[in-house]
Amino acid sequence: MVNQSSKATSDQSLGRQNVEELPQLLILHPGPIFSMHESLFEKKFSLLKAWESPESIHHFLTTHAQSTRAILCSSVTPITAEILSLLPSLCVIACENTGVELIDLMECRKRGIYVTNAGPAFSQDVADMAVGLLLAVAMRIPASDRYIRARGWSDHQCFPPRTFKLRGKHVGIVGFGNIGSEVAKRLEAFGCKISYNSRKQKPSIPYEFYPQVIDLAYNCNVLIICCALTDQTRHMINRDVLKSLGENGIIVNVGRGSIIHERELVTSLMSREIAGAGLDVFENEPNVPNELFELDNVVLTPHRGAFTEEVFSNAFKLTMANLEAFFSNKPLITAIKQYD
Amino acid sequence: MVNQSSKATSDQSLGRQNVEELPQLLILHPGPIFSMHESLFEKKFSLLKAWESPESIHHFLTTHAQSTRAILCSSVTPITAEILSLLPSLCVIACENTGVELIDLMECRKRGIYVTNAGPAFSQDVADMAVGLLLAVAMRIPASDRYIRARGWSDHQCFPPRTFKLRGKHVGIVGFGNIGSEVAKRLEAFGCKISYNSRKQKPSIPYEFYPQVIDLAYNCNVLIICCALTDQTRHMINRDVLKSLGENGIIVNVGRGSIIHERELVTSLMSREIAGAGLDVFENEPNVPNELFELDNVVLTPHRGAFTEEVFSNAFKLTMANLEAFFSNKPLITAIKQYD
Repeated sequence: MVNQSSKATSDQSLGRQNVEELPQLLILHPGPIFSMHESLFEKKFSLLKAWESPESIHHFLTTHAQSTRAILCSSVTPITAEILSLLPSLCVIACENTGVELIDLMECRKRGIYVTNAGPAFSQDVADMAVGLLLAVAMRIPASDRYIRARGWSDHQCFPPRTFKLRGKHVGIVGFGNIGSEVAKRLEAFGCKISYNSRKQKPSIPYEFYPQVIDLAYNCNVLIICCALTDQTRHMINRDVLKSLGENGIIVNVGRGSIIHERELVTSLMSREIAGAGLDVFENEPNVPNELFELDNVVLTPHRGAFTEEVFSNAFKLTMANLEAFFSNKPLITAIKQYD
Repeated sequence: MVNQSSKATSDQSLGRQNVEELPQLLILHPGPIFSMHESLFEKKFSLLKAWESPESIHHFLTTHAQSTRAILCSSVTPITAEILSLLPSLCVIACENTGVELIDLMECRKRGIYVTNAGPAFSQDVADMAVGLLLAVAMRIPASDRYIRARGWSDHQCFPPRTFKLRGKHVGIVGFGNIGSEVAKRLEAFGCKISYNSRKQKPSIPYEFYPQVIDLAYNCNVLIICCALTDQTRHMINRDVLKSLGENGIIVNVGRGSIIHERELVTSLMSREIAGAGLDVFENEPNVPNELFELDNVVLTPHRGAFTEEVFSNAFKLTMANLEAFFSNKPLITAIKQYD
C-alpha cells in the first residue's frame, strides 16, 4: 500500500519547508479548525484541497490522491464507502471534531483505516455547556432576560416563579464518556444524584447503570444526552422516553440532534409532556423547528458547546498530534475504538 | 418590658386556636412568604396587619402595638429607628428573607432587639443562580437563544464565537457566607480557582483571602458578589474595581444591587472595560438601566435567584421556627450577629 510518494514523505521529518517533501494531507471541505490554522497545517503537510478544484470529486481523487495516506475531516465532511474506494493508500482519517457519524466506520474497519478525533479537546467545554443549558432552563434565565428587556418587570407584569430546584434532583446521563463524566462531576457539586445509560455498564463508574434509556428517564428528573450518534442511538430519545421523563422533567442535548426524534420532542414540549429542554444540537442544522421559537421553556444554542478560542487551539494541537504520530509511526493519541 | 398581653401569650402553647390567647405578630407590609402562608401564620399568631388599617402607621402602632413583642418583615419593609421607638415591647424582628439592610440594626442593638433572617433557606438556590448567570454570560446562552429565535442561524448570519472558557479561570467571591461557600463548591467542580474577600479572613476557609476587593478583582477573571448590603459594602464595586477586573472579566451579582455602583457598571459595560455581567439584583428594582437592554454581553434576571416553591416553603418553616423559638424561650435558630 505504501507507494513511492508516501514512502518518501513518511521517511522525512515533518519540520521541512520543501512542499514536495512534506507528507500529503487531503481535505475535502475545510472545517473550522483547519480554516483557523491553515498556515500551520501548510508548514507540516502538502495540502490537497479538493474543494478548490473545478474537477469532480471522483476525478480529483483518482487523479491526485492515489498515494494519499491521510485525510483531515470535520463534522461537515461525509466520508462514504465510495470516497474510501477511491483512496487506495488511505491509512488514517483525522477528525478535527468529536463526532464521527459522517464516516463509514464499518468500511474503515474493513479497509484497516484508523480514525482519530479531537474529542478530549472539547469535552470539558461541552460539559460546561450541558450544565449551563440545564441551569438556563431550570432557572428560566433567558426567559427572565427577555421579560426584563421587554420591560415586563418595570411594568409589574406577571412572571411565574420557577419551580425547579436543582438540589436533590436525579440526573440521568446518556452516554458516559469524556463529556458524561465531566457533567457528572459538575452536577454532583450542585447536590444532584447521578445515574447513567451507556452501551454497556462501566465497572469503574460509581453511579447506578440503567441498561434501558426509558427506565433511566422514568427514574430521573433530568436527562442529559452526551452520547455519540450511531445507528443504535439515532432517534433513541422518542416520545415514549420523553413521556417517561414526565411533565416535570427537563432534557438537555449536547450530543447530536438526531439522537432525539426532533418532531416528537416538539410535540412533547408543546403539549407539556415534559417541562423544558436545553438544546445545543438539532437534526437539520442550522434549521431549528419554528415551533420552538414560541416556547419560553426551551433554550436554544447554535451547536457551539465548545466554541472557545482555547478549545479551537487545543483541538488543532490534538489533530496535529494524531497526524504527526501517524507519520512518525508512533501510536495514535485518540484513535476511535471501532469494536467497542 | 413584658406587659400583661405578652406575658399571657408567652405562657401559652402556640397550638391553641383561640385568637385572643395567641401571641401577637405585627406585619407592616406583607412579603411573599407571609402572603403564601398567611393561613398558617394565622393558626399560630394573632396577626396585627398594619397595612390593612386606614389609620396612619404612627397612630396604628401607638394604639394597637404597644404590647407587641414580635414583628415579621420582608425585604420591602423598612424598620426605622422611628418605628422602633413606637414599639416599646418589641423583642424580635423575624425577616422572611435574607437581606436585613432595611432594618436599623444599630437601633436594634441599642434596644436589645434580636433580628433573625431566613438566609439558609435561600443560599443553595442563590448559589445555583450565581453559577447559572456566570455560565449564561460566559457561554453567551441568552444571546445565542436570541440569535436563533431571530433566525440568525438559519440565515447564516455571523455570530461571534465565545472566548471565555471556565476551566482554569480565577474566580473571586465577595462575601464568603452561606451563599459564597456554596458558589465555591460548585465552581471548584468546573476547574476554577477560588479566592475571596470578606469583612475578615476566615481561618477555616482554604482559599486565598484578599482584604481589598480591588486586589481581588485585579487577580481574578470573575467576581461574584454574594455579600450583604451594609454601609461598608454600598457602592463597594465602583469603576476602579471594575477596571481592575479588566476587559476580559465578568461580574455576577446575586447580593444586592447597591453593592455595585450601577451607573459606573453601565459605563464600564458600554465602554467594554469589562467583558460582561450577570445581574439578578439592581439598585432601583424593578427598574433596570435601559442601556443594559442593548447589550448582548449582559444577562438580566428579576431578583429571583431563590424563587422556587421549595425555597418558599423552607423559608416559611425557618421563619416560623424562629418565632416559635422566641415565644417558647428557646434559642433563636438564625439570629443575625450584630457585632461581627
